[in-house]
Amino acid sequence: MTVELISVGTEILLGNIVNTNAAYLAEKCAWLGLSCYYQDVVGDNEERLYETIRTALSRADILLISGGLGPTQDDLTKEVAAKVMEKPLYLHEESKEAIRRFFDKRGMEITDNNWKQAMVPEGCIVLDNPNGTAPGVIMEKDGRHIVLMPGPPNEMIPMFETSVIPYLNRLQNGVIYSQTVKICGVGESKAESMVKDLIESQSNPTIATYAKTGEVHLRVTAKAEDEKAAKKLVKPVVKELKGRFGSSVYTTEDNVTLERSVVDLLRANHLTLVTAESCTGGMLAARLVNVAGVSDVFRAGYVTYSNKAKRRLLGIKKSSLAKHGAVSKEIAREMAKGAALISKADATVSVTGIAGPDGGTEEKPVGLVYIACNVCGKITVKEYHFSGNRAKIRENTVSAALVFLRECILQYYSEMTFGGKDK
Amino acid sequence: MTVELISVGTEILLGNIVNTNAAYLAEKCAWLGLSCYYQDVVGDNEERLYETIRTALSRADILLISGGLGPTQDDLTKEVAAKVMEKPLYLHEESKEAIRRFFDKRGMEITDNNWKQAMVPEGCIVLDNPNGTAPGVIMEKDGRHIVLMPGPPNEMIPMFETSVIPYLNRLQNGVIYSQTVKICGVGESKAESMVKDLIESQSNPTIATYAKTGEVHLRVTAKAEDEKAAKKLVKPVVKELKGRFGSSVYTTEDNVTLERSVVDLLRANHLTLVTAESCTGGMLAARLVNVAGVSDVFRAGYVTYSNKAKRRLLGIKKSSLAKHGAVSKEIAREMAKGAALISKADATVSVTGIAGPDGGTEEKPVGLVYIACNVCGKITVKEYHFSGNRAKIRENTVSAALVFLRECILQYYSEMTFGGKDK
Repeated sequence: MTVELISVGTEILLGNIVNTNAAYLAEKCAWLGLSCYYQDVVGDNEERLYETIRTALSRADILLISGGLGPTQDDLTKEVAAKVMEKPLYLHEESKEAIRRFFDKRGMEITDNNWKQAMVPEGCIVLDNPNGTAPGVIMEKDGRHIVLMPGPPNEMIPMFETSVIPYLNRLQNGVIYSQTVKICGVGESKAESMVKDLIESQSNPTIATYAKTGEVHLRVTAKAEDEKAAKKLVKPVVKELKGRFGSSVYTTEDNVTLERSVVDLLRANHLTLVTAESCTGGMLAARLVNVAGVSDVFRAGYVTYSNKAKRRLLGIKKSSLAKHGAVSKEIAREMAKGAALISKADATVSVTGIAGPDGGTEEKPVGLVYIACNVCGKITVKEYHFSGNRAKIRENTVSAALVFLRECILQYYSEMTFGGKDK
Repeated sequence: MTVELISVGTEILLGNIVNTNAAYLAEKCAWLGLSCYYQDVVGDNEERLYETIRTALSRADILLISGGLGPTQDDLTKEVAAKVMEKPLYLHEESKEAIRRFFDKRGMEITDNNWKQAMVPEGCIVLDNPNGTAPGVIMEKDGRHIVLMPGPPNEMIPMFETSVIPYLNRLQNGVIYSQTVKICGVGESKAESMVKDLIESQSNPTIATYAKTGEVHLRVTAKAEDEKAAKKLVKPVVKELKGRFGSSVYTTEDNVTLERSVVDLLRANHLTLVTAESCTGGMLAARLVNVAGVSDVFRAGYVTYSNKAKRRLLGIKKSSLAKHGAVSKEIAREMAKGAALISKADATVSVTGIAGPDGGTEEKPVGLVYIACNVCGKITVKEYHFSGNRAKIRENTVSAALVFLRECILQYYSEMTFGGKDK
């Protein structure tokens, strides 16, 4: 089945906000096995909205429309969509009650225009919105389906996951199930070449690769008559991928991020961590703190962007800085070592580099980064060359630091287990 | 004149990347005084791309199309757009040379398919691409204009700014000039109500408000026959806005961000800064380090997410933590004080809060944040209540910390100057 995404909102047309809803829905549709050929953005204008919905209906089976369900006169997505589908609106008592409860709970006063949000098209399916006042709506006619969802992502996403995904699965005569194998430390083209034969030889399940900063996600998607059968199709392929990528696979779970897998690995080995950052300036610590409950392994972070801070906070010698320069293998090593000495943390990771736009030289160009990891006294340093602007270089550095720390921890325990060099 | 944005790329339809190009171009078009009623996304498919361009041409004067100019067989934007405009392609020798230079400079080998990128439509304007191998193209026919640009933002944006903006300005019989008054510490609806009369009474220049996290941007746009005349129209309105918003205006320059204005303020007053962060976990330091050359004012950052780190790094007493809890006015104050004591920095800012999703209580709910600022020994603490998820709460906290630090510095010097309470 085909799907078309329509985002309604003048604020998108004015460039006031980035259309992240479309990216979210597009990814989920691919995951659900729905083909999407068009995405549209249109403002809160009756005529143009009508034409956009009509055109989309002529070329897609399902329209996912977000935005324009608010209480003001400007918000007219529901009214226009109902007009296209030739369905009159009526007052939906349960939605009215839900709106009343929403306001009461927050001690806010209801204004008259809020009741507009309780009006829904005849014969539609009404979707709960626990995070806002606009209910969602699904309309069906002549084998075509229109789904209306609120624009704010914190309302749209839970509604889509709770109510719309099961609906879309039911439409498809069968169930789509997919699992993602997330790998890190392997480049996109290398990863693709390692699964080329699988991608070419299989049709159900299919394998799709997604490149992320510092990681690659391999999504295995199967279609079957029920979830159990679909899972059975996915399982051997996931196993094959795990075999091919070995320890580069950091998770096969959707809700586990790279930073969470690193935090889990630290926790499993009873290791505490301290970070020491120069060019990333706190971004690495901030990314670790994305993980709720990180405090039992993440002890502290030092942001030592200036040389003075490197000396005072981490005990780096002035002579070392003069001899090697702040961006060097040696200083990265001393930062990791200094952080361990002052904090007594089991693991430390340090970052120093030239993020630009200034500060690069022939010998040490913009994008040169050193990352050092210390796991229980064993320090390893790695040199990186990143391209892009200041923000991109710093973002790449943070991902690389997480990948490298993970590798160093795994390496440390593998050497211990297999009797390799210890420390 | 009207403009329509078309983004070409299967990776957008699959949700693999977020369409930031459209947001960028939309904002610039608004700034240029062009009305945009539709944005479209379509894949690298000949038939659908042809239909999309044809439909867009029937309803807009100018199409800005990005993506699909690569060297592979899949990339067919130029071919399809030329077909719609009925222009044959020919080999553009200068572009061929530019591509050769691009590869030579990088020591890379040219493959045959790269010459495809040097083919351009007859009678078109060719746009230089110093950051890649795909030249841009402008075609004109029957008063309609199609602009083709490469998809990667680091190629598209410089091309748009260098070549396309002057072209669009020439089209408009006159020049659009705009200046943005950026304010912080004033909510969006308050800001809007403070300029409502101006917005309603003026047509040239116009004033548009843009809400950002922790800030509001007021864009003043004038149209005139030349830049000098347009600037003359903008100037008194900017002056009026500066008068109304006073010290809440942090800049009127496009390339100055909130963090840069704070860094500039610190530098102007010869103040050094140290940060101490709990729930934001390094995000505040990372945002300051967005500013290249920050090291002459930003001394160091402490990420003290755990209580242990607050005690060891900042000298917070165990008894204080037990008495007040880590998220409290008192601990925020002690963090700012402790950071100043150990670092000897002139200014310190500390952050402690509950970012969720867990850890909230009836008394101290998720979203409760305390920020303390110390300027030369004078400490001020403020309580905040943010909503949203963990990421949103942390992002709001960082912006609020920058705004509050700026206020505290201004306040400190104003009291000194006007003989108010010192310290």
